[in-house]
Amino acid sequence: MELYRIGIIGSGSFGTAIANIIARDVQNKSVFDDTVKIWIFDEQVRIDGSKELLSEYIKRERENVNYLPHVKLPENLLFMTNLKEVVQKSDILVFVVPHQFIEKIVQDLKSMKLKKKIACSLMKGTLFSEETAEIVLISNYIEKELGWPCSAVMGANIASEMHKSVCEMTIGSRTDGDLLKQLFNTPQVKVNVVRDKTSVELFGALKNIVAIAFGVARGLQLSINTQVSIMRRGMLEMIEFVKMVDKNADKLTILESCGIADLMVSCITGRNAGCGTAIASKGLTIEKIEEDMKGQKLQGTLCAYEVMMYLRKKNVVDKFPVFATVYGICYGKMDSNQILKVFEE
Amino acid sequence: MELYRIGIIGSGSFGTAIANIIARDVQNKSVFDDTVKIWIFDEQVRIDGSKELLSEYIKRERENVNYLPHVKLPENLLFMTNLKEVVQKSDILVFVVPHQFIEKIVQDLKSMKLKKKIACSLMKGTLFSEETAEIVLISNYIEKELGWPCSAVMGANIASEMHKSVCEMTIGSRTDGDLLKQLFNTPQVKVNVVRDKTSVELFGALKNIVAIAFGVARGLQLSINTQVSIMRRGMLEMIEFVKMVDKNADKLTILESCGIADLMVSCITGRNAGCGTAIASKGLTIEKIEEDMKGQKLQGTLCAYEVMMYLRKKNVVDKFPVFATVYGICYGKMDSNQILKVFEE
Repeated sequence: MELYRIGIIGSGSFGTAIANIIARDVQNKSVFDDTVKIWIFDEQVRIDGSKELLSEYIKRERENVNYLPHVKLPENLLFMTNLKEVVQKSDILVFVVPHQFIEKIVQDLKSMKLKKKIACSLMKGTLFSEETAEIVLISNYIEKELGWPCSAVMGANIASEMHKSVCEMTIGSRTDGDLLKQLFNTPQVKVNVVRDKTSVELFGALKNIVAIAFGVARGLQLSINTQVSIMRRGMLEMIEFVKMVDKNADKLTILESCGIADLMVSCITGRNAGCGTAIASKGLTIEKIEEDMKGQKLQGTLCAYEVMMYLRKKNVVDKFPVFATVYGICYGKMDSNQILKVFEE
Repeated sequence: MELYRIGIIGSGSFGTAIANIIARDVQNKSVFDDTVKIWIFDEQVRIDGSKELLSEYIKRERENVNYLPHVKLPENLLFMTNLKEVVQKSDILVFVVPHQFIEKIVQDLKSMKLKKKIACSLMKGTLFSEETAEIVLISNYIEKELGWPCSAVMGANIASEMHKSVCEMTIGSRTDGDLLKQLFNTPQVKVNVVRDKTSVELFGALKNIVAIAFGVARGLQLSINTQVSIMRRGMLEMIEFVKMVDKNADKLTILESCGIADLMVSCITGRNAGCGTAIASKGLTIEKIEEDMKGQKLQGTLCAYEVMMYLRKKNVVDKFPVFATVYGICYGKMDSNQILKVFEE
């Protein structure tokens, strides 16, 4: 039997964390090749004053010092700088690059005229056209552009803590759910498969808007009752929004790890909730907050903008007061304490 | 038109908090009498060395110094020590006494041969028979013993914070939902009505078991991914358990304030989660923890015991690993780190 060869596209913190777990466990699985390849977009690192390529450093030290420090990576995880080589030598591709690079990468792959692969996306975000105000799932974009079936894999997992203990993931898949479950399910990662890919993928993006709302309420020192009530209403908007995008979406998908659990982690410890708190308690703007993040982008603020444009086009802004208020607060059109507007009838 | 007269049975912290909110708002509502009565089980308070009856103190100072300090209570909230008088002069009765007193109170009321009333219970717990290992909803007990329709009112609301900002409540009712919504809905309390009373009432009890599990994971310093995954699995057990008790229960009730929101508040700030953390991080027993609580009982540990007896009788312990593990840890039959057993297939 031919073994499925695994390639991971992206070696940031989440990519490296998931690659570490997959590579450690793949040797116990009979249907996958023992070597896991991961594509690295190379950069320089400075260690004790001397410069070195990150890929060279990782090969020698088995540690992704830039994105997942203090985690020893296994020998069967091969970091490769040639994207084409990684993809050509893989049957299953895991996409986990920063959101803003996916279109360029997919177009590069398209030009390579590759054989058909099985794909899945771990990316929490959507593609958005300013002109049409249409929201496109990244997994659907990959399917359409490359002609490969693409599933979505999401869940409550902070990258830096994944290797420490147990977590869960949800696979949204209409085609390769069983195979991908074999790949992602390990003693440390418990996987559930659902057919409702739209909810799985969109929840991963939308929960960041709700986390900002929760953070704003926390920053205003509103009661925990209020904070959690805002979160709950945001959760209901997540469900309604997904239903607009895909009428076959299933409300019960919110009970999966990609739903309520990922939302709760994001509210308790996430960066977007922290952004909401900083806006409300210190009056910071999102520009200032992103500046302090050294160029990293806040997913939630971008998502709040895209979602607002979509809601306006559909003429349903009134039905989504949490999303609309977060947009207003982030983009300087509302004061933080207007978060309480979400409770108005 | 005759106005509905309101009586509240119980003046602990939650009883006083809800009475405060109802009394403040009842004057703006045309169908209710302007005076709200609340039954107080009297006790002595010591202020600056001198003793006084709590009821006298409250009447003078408009503050329930023992159970809801620093909250000024309105003049139209009448504290009365005669239970029969409160009930006779009321049309709608709100039950919110500590769990262990409800049977005595209901039997007292039964002996009084009163006119039919509209009842609702805000009590988070169940009645349990050691002999039969049957779980009885408090609202059903009131209905059966007194012949009054009784709804359940639950939600994510920490008593001491209710007056500060906005919160939500869920009314589970098959009979008086609209009327009770008029009573409980205020600018500060947003109410939703569902017919699925069983879920509403049982979630209020069961979430405390899950909060202990979350607290144990926190006490062991497991990753936030793991903590939240344990909470999610506990939430699924809550849904399954309710379904066993009432096959007409609706899975979507978990999305109400009484479900996921109350669970989340309990995990983040609740006493039961704190108990789980103390067991796991300091090795305390539940006896020691309750001792430090000056005689107050932990709802979650009692509920874990009752639920375990019920699961054993039904022969389904294996299907509820979160509930079973919390029982084992609380009653000294398992080590805290066996909480990870909930992830075993």
